[in-house]
Amino acid sequence: MEIIGKPLNRVDAKEKVTGKAKYTGDLVDSHALIAKVLHSTIANGLVKSFDLIEAWKVPGVIDIVTCFDVPDYQFPTAGHPWSTEKKHQDIADRKLLNSRVRFYGDDIAAVIAENEIAAITAVRKIKVTYEQYEPLLSVEAAMQPGARPIHEEKPDNVVVHSSYEIGSFEQAIQEPGLIKTEGDYETPIVQHCHIENANSFAYMESGKIVIVSSTQIPHIVRRVCSQALGIGFGDIRIIKPYIGGGFGNKQDALTEPLNAYLTTRVGGRQVQLEYTREETFSCTRVRHAMKFHIESYVRKDGSLAARSVVAYSNQGAYASHAHALVANAVNGFRMMYPVGAIKGEAYTVYTNMPTAGAMRAYGIPQIGFALESHIDDIIAKTGFDPIGFRKQNMMKLGYVDPLTTITCHSTGLAECIDTGEQYLQFLKKRELYAKQTGPVRKGVGMAIFNYKTGVYPISLETSACRMLLNQDGSLQLQMGATEIGQGADTVFSMMAAQTVGLSVDKVHIISKQDTDVTPYDTGAYASRQTYVSGMAVKKTAQVFKAKILDYAGFMLKKDPVDLDIQDNFIVHKNKTEHLLSVGEVALESCYSLTNSHHIAAEETHHCTDNTYSFGVCFTEIEVDIPLCQIKVLDIINVHDSGIIINHQTAEGQIQGGMSMGLGYGLSEHLIFDQKTGRMLNDNLLDYKLMTALDTPDLHVSFVETQDPTGPYGNKALGEPPVIPVAPALRNALLNATGVAVNSIPLNPEKLFVAFENAGIIR
Amino acid sequence: MEIIGKPLNRVDAKEKVTGKAKYTGDLVDSHALIAKVLHSTIANGLVKSFDLIEAWKVPGVIDIVTCFDVPDYQFPTAGHPWSTEKKHQDIADRKLLNSRVRFYGDDIAAVIAENEIAAITAVRKIKVTYEQYEPLLSVEAAMQPGARPIHEEKPDNVVVHSSYEIGSFEQAIQEPGLIKTEGDYETPIVQHCHIENANSFAYMESGKIVIVSSTQIPHIVRRVCSQALGIGFGDIRIIKPYIGGGFGNKQDALTEPLNAYLTTRVGGRQVQLEYTREETFSCTRVRHAMKFHIESYVRKDGSLAARSVVAYSNQGAYASHAHALVANAVNGFRMMYPVGAIKGEAYTVYTNMPTAGAMRAYGIPQIGFALESHIDDIIAKTGFDPIGFRKQNMMKLGYVDPLTTITCHSTGLAECIDTGEQYLQFLKKRELYAKQTGPVRKGVGMAIFNYKTGVYPISLETSACRMLLNQDGSLQLQMGATEIGQGADTVFSMMAAQTVGLSVDKVHIISKQDTDVTPYDTGAYASRQTYVSGMAVKKTAQVFKAKILDYAGFMLKKDPVDLDIQDNFIVHKNKTEHLLSVGEVALESCYSLTNSHHIAAEETHHCTDNTYSFGVCFTEIEVDIPLCQIKVLDIINVHDSGIIINHQTAEGQIQGGMSMGLGYGLSEHLIFDQKTGRMLNDNLLDYKLMTALDTPDLHVSFVETQDPTGPYGNKALGEPPVIPVAPALRNALLNATGVAVNSIPLNPEKLFVAFENAGIIR
Repeated sequence: MEIIGKPLNRVDAKEKVTGKAKYTGDLVDSHALIAKVLHSTIANGLVKSFDLIEAWKVPGVIDIVTCFDVPDYQFPTAGHPWSTEKKHQDIADRKLLNSRVRFYGDDIAAVIAENEIAAITAVRKIKVTYEQYEPLLSVEAAMQPGARPIHEEKPDNVVVHSSYEIGSFEQAIQEPGLIKTEGDYETPIVQHCHIENANSFAYMESGKIVIVSSTQIPHIVRRVCSQALGIGFGDIRIIKPYIGGGFGNKQDALTEPLNAYLTTRVGGRQVQLEYTREETFSCTRVRHAMKFHIESYVRKDGSLAARSVVAYSNQGAYASHAHALVANAVNGFRMMYPVGAIKGEAYTVYTNMPTAGAMRAYGIPQIGFALESHIDDIIAKTGFDPIGFRKQNMMKLGYVDPLTTITCHSTGLAECIDTGEQYLQFLKKRELYAKQTGPVRKGVGMAIFNYKTGVYPISLETSACRMLLNQDGSLQLQMGATEIGQGADTVFSMMAAQTVGLSVDKVHIISKQDTDVTPYDTGAYASRQTYVSGMAVKKTAQVFKAKILDYAGFMLKKDPVDLDIQDNFIVHKNKTEHLLSVGEVALESCYSLTNSHHIAAEETHHCTDNTYSFGVCFTEIEVDIPLCQIKVLDIINVHDSGIIINHQTAEGQIQGGMSMGLGYGLSEHLIFDQKTGRMLNDNLLDYKLMTALDTPDLHVSFVETQDPTGPYGNKALGEPPVIPVAPALRNALLNATGVAVNSIPLNPEKLFVAFENAGIIR
Repeated sequence: MEIIGKPLNRVDAKEKVTGKAKYTGDLVDSHALIAKVLHSTIANGLVKSFDLIEAWKVPGVIDIVTCFDVPDYQFPTAGHPWSTEKKHQDIADRKLLNSRVRFYGDDIAAVIAENEIAAITAVRKIKVTYEQYEPLLSVEAAMQPGARPIHEEKPDNVVVHSSYEIGSFEQAIQEPGLIKTEGDYETPIVQHCHIENANSFAYMESGKIVIVSSTQIPHIVRRVCSQALGIGFGDIRIIKPYIGGGFGNKQDALTEPLNAYLTTRVGGRQVQLEYTREETFSCTRVRHAMKFHIESYVRKDGSLAARSVVAYSNQGAYASHAHALVANAVNGFRMMYPVGAIKGEAYTVYTNMPTAGAMRAYGIPQIGFALESHIDDIIAKTGFDPIGFRKQNMMKLGYVDPLTTITCHSTGLAECIDTGEQYLQFLKKRELYAKQTGPVRKGVGMAIFNYKTGVYPISLETSACRMLLNQDGSLQLQMGATEIGQGADTVFSMMAAQTVGLSVDKVHIISKQDTDVTPYDTGAYASRQTYVSGMAVKKTAQVFKAKILDYAGFMLKKDPVDLDIQDNFIVHKNKTEHLLSVGEVALESCYSLTNSHHIAAEETHHCTDNTYSFGVCFTEIEVDIPLCQIKVLDIINVHDSGIIINHQTAEGQIQGGMSMGLGYGLSEHLIFDQKTGRMLNDNLLDYKLMTALDTPDLHVSFVETQDPTGPYGNKALGEPPVIPVAPALRNALLNATGVAVNSIPLNPEKLFVAFENAGIIR
């Protein structure tokens, strides 16, 4: 019975396609009060006073809370594990409502009303007097000497400045004969666009504040709420039902801390705080816009001699995940092409822009675009073979990152490249397309990536799991790790079934996390779940299986070490005759008059390893130069994510990531009024997300390696697919037109400027 | 820090008195469908056909299910643990809806509709054609030769007939000089009258049928539903919120199996099946009416030489708990006054009456009334001192019951008697009142009892518990055992706090049981929870504490065996200096970058012991002979329930039981139309439950013994208070008037007949 690797349907498929799955909004009581937040209409300044007279007159208004009323606790929102070490703690730089306004859309007051219309009406009737400052929208503006501090704790608006150097960069570049390539690359602010907006509701029960929320990180949100309200962890309870996507946005405490406070204002009555799409765009989190300056020095033999990067990350108004993103980016820069001399420097800078937080692949799509564009710039300059050059310089098996010690335990990257090359006939076409003329031209491009699996050793990796044996021999599987649409419940069920020796239909996974009863896990992020939480499943399943075998041994009067479980039956090891069903063991263990024992196991896995996933994107495009339009003709992602637990769900995950990558490369970016800092396209009509009609067929292939550290030979898969698409598109554009566009999205406005500058249109 | 024994407020007090506690009805979705059951309007017969035409026409009707549609599974309903041994399994004698009608009110069809009015209207419009048989309402009628079998499996309508004999009764009574006393005693059918009627709602989620129900026994109900529907245990999930009383009625599967089926009829939509008060009276369970014939042979020295009892128990239409009740009664008869020669015989008989099931003290109030009335009949005949005679013959420390082996590990019964005697000045008044004349007379009476703690060794006693350490050092306590209003959550919290070394406010007990995640426990019955489930709390708390100390030892680099937890702090054993707070250990154990370990413990306790509780009731009454009315002037219950965990909640429990005993003795009984078998007083207006105005001050006292088998020296307390009240009242009436009334309730109708027969009124 080999379950791992089977292309099984998702365990929640039926529930979701029939519309029965309950999301946060489906669980709200029909009598719940509705809260709405008043967001600032300036980007930088102070709230001086409110006039609430007209707002209070609105029928149905129950309470109005302003930034002058909330508890005086500063708290962080990032979905990172807490640490008992100060330096590992996130920056606590906001209150539940803020009188110091830091972006257009900051939370300054809230209304609780009997219904949504009353709440909205009252919010609109609140009059605010501000003291207004000049908005600092760009990193450059915020870093200008004399710029007004956005947070007084950071007088120069730099949240963190960090750097590393391996070997001596200055010495290395003295080597004679080196070819220097340098470039500047820029990525935009984009948004996650999960289907389900930020949404929670809160109430009080048994002396606790209970918050039901669409979150990726219930246990972390519990801690954040306890910090925000100044009460114990144990006095907060977070429940996470099914959620309609997160992509990292919900790896932050969003509506929950304020919602937790609001219910305390109304004696514990249920209060819903649901963001509209517009609020979700403006007032939750966005992907960090980053700027990179990269320099590379190449020897004539094609080997890299020295590399450097300087990165600037636009943090927006609040710290959220802060420097972790750009640090990840400059670390990823180092890891992809190991070289004797390398340096990196990174700035994370407060601005009066929406707060940037986690988003799928956490800084790596940014550096991925910059680095893989830069590699093709080197190729263009030197004439090396783009595949040969990459293969020569890229990370190899056994690589140990000098700063993090993360080791390359397995790699199928070369095979991934070969598979993609063969699929697209890349080299042949590349040569062919380099010689085109005329208004419509084709091009091929590629980009590779590596991606860590989880956050060890930078941060804590820990996960717990609990299993309970039902009396019919089926298994209740309780995970701290969260299903957020990515298919985690399905792979956990498969892992549990495989290790215990049950069929998958005997595994009942509990999708809902409830911090009162759910084992601890930090949540869904960093492509950590099949790896880190998978280790917890495996460890718990082994203990659980041993307990079943112990009891079976007692029943059979046999030594349990001679027994095994195969396909729901107890057997002699290496034999197939059924001695007992697991159901019989379950019944007897529960109801024996002499020896009842309720079989359960609960284990923590503290993970102290990490490993790299790899992959590549190859794409072929057609560029209409006069129209400044790109059409994707073909695209393939080839991934080494170790052993694939479930090919069906893995393929879906890759396709979703590729779609997100296409939007990142071609069309998505948030636009702001440069005077006020107001977001101008905060909706799904004006924000150009890829639709089904925009999306070509998405081809996916896997190179399966057996990673020795993965619990089932597996490694990161969830986030990586997004990474290589944008640079592959940019490199294809370069191949088609000879024009290097170093800023995404590659939309018509940008191509027009680039083509005009290059003189191919006028 | 001694927590056990403190008179703490209930942990759910605030929640309940502020109306925030959520009961089943509070959790029903506002869009839920409503189901109503059509109950038969004959007591004995067959459903031949239905005419559903008019019922289907009612707007809003979604589905109509009849007894011809339901799955063909017979299932039992009793809240007993399952057993893998056939002979320990309950009698499976009903279907979800029954075409063979066995009592007036049997479930024969059900309607599911959009709203309650539509459901009720449609139920009324269903036309039924019956084949009608003569109702067999009494044990005598049902046992008459040639009586029609109510269940074909029992041709003589006797569900079970059992007997025991210890020593030789026939030989013993040959002893010269014995004084024989014999009598017949009778107890009525009464109902539990819990505030919250039978109520559940069901829906389907993640492939499971979920039933939220007001039940005492969630895990057992899961099994019963699985039997009724013929599906696996793991495919059923039972959730038990707060419940508004049960008193044994909800120790049966009531609405749940049918409700589970009904949701499958409507594609898993939520369906509520709530019984009205009238349905709860007629169609759930009642207390068994029993009749006893008792004979006693006493020596001149006051010692008992031989005793016998024959008991008949009216089971009603379905087996439910069946013979277990009257078996308990005749066992209790044996245990109270051990004697060399004793025999007991018991019949449980099907009749066309409402089904009798479990009710507080499970057969012992019945035998208690008979036996303690009989003891006073012996006293009356022999002239022995009622206290001296009881003390001479009653169970003593070290008694081992010859059939069950249940041992008297502790007894404070003599001290209980002394305490009550002293309070009431019983002997003095008894002598005084024996000489009264005139129309209004006073009387004093007493009765003692013993009560087992749980069901071992007759049935399985097993309980599991889980504890989770929150990151603030507080504890999540998850019990399989259920809070049903009796205060279980409070004493479990105290036990956990005491054993782990935390203050009670650090214990967060999860009141809601959910079979998907809650450790197994058979539920709330048999006064087992502080004893059996208390053992599980203690065992789990010891393991949990050891894990905390292990981690503290790691943090402090000390051997954990030298450490202890006192009042939320880690200390050196026998010292008081705080080394660490439990909160610090919790934080580090969760967030340590090198050794995170989520501290949790989950343990089963398989209980293999039992022990006796004891107590006595003393009461003083005033009898208005012409009006045939009894007024209770004073009453006290004195209990030996071992160490009292919480004096405040224990006292409340005793008072509740005394109130129930007063109703049993004075006013409560269900009345039936003798021709049709229809219940005539199925509501709280016509059924004479004790109200606050009817109830005298209820005095309570405890004699605390340290039971060596109780986890905290404790033993049964929940059910016993009801037992001795009715016989004490009857004996007081005897003292006041010289009239022995051997049937309860002692209401004016009955007293009128008795006084007339005795010639004291005419």
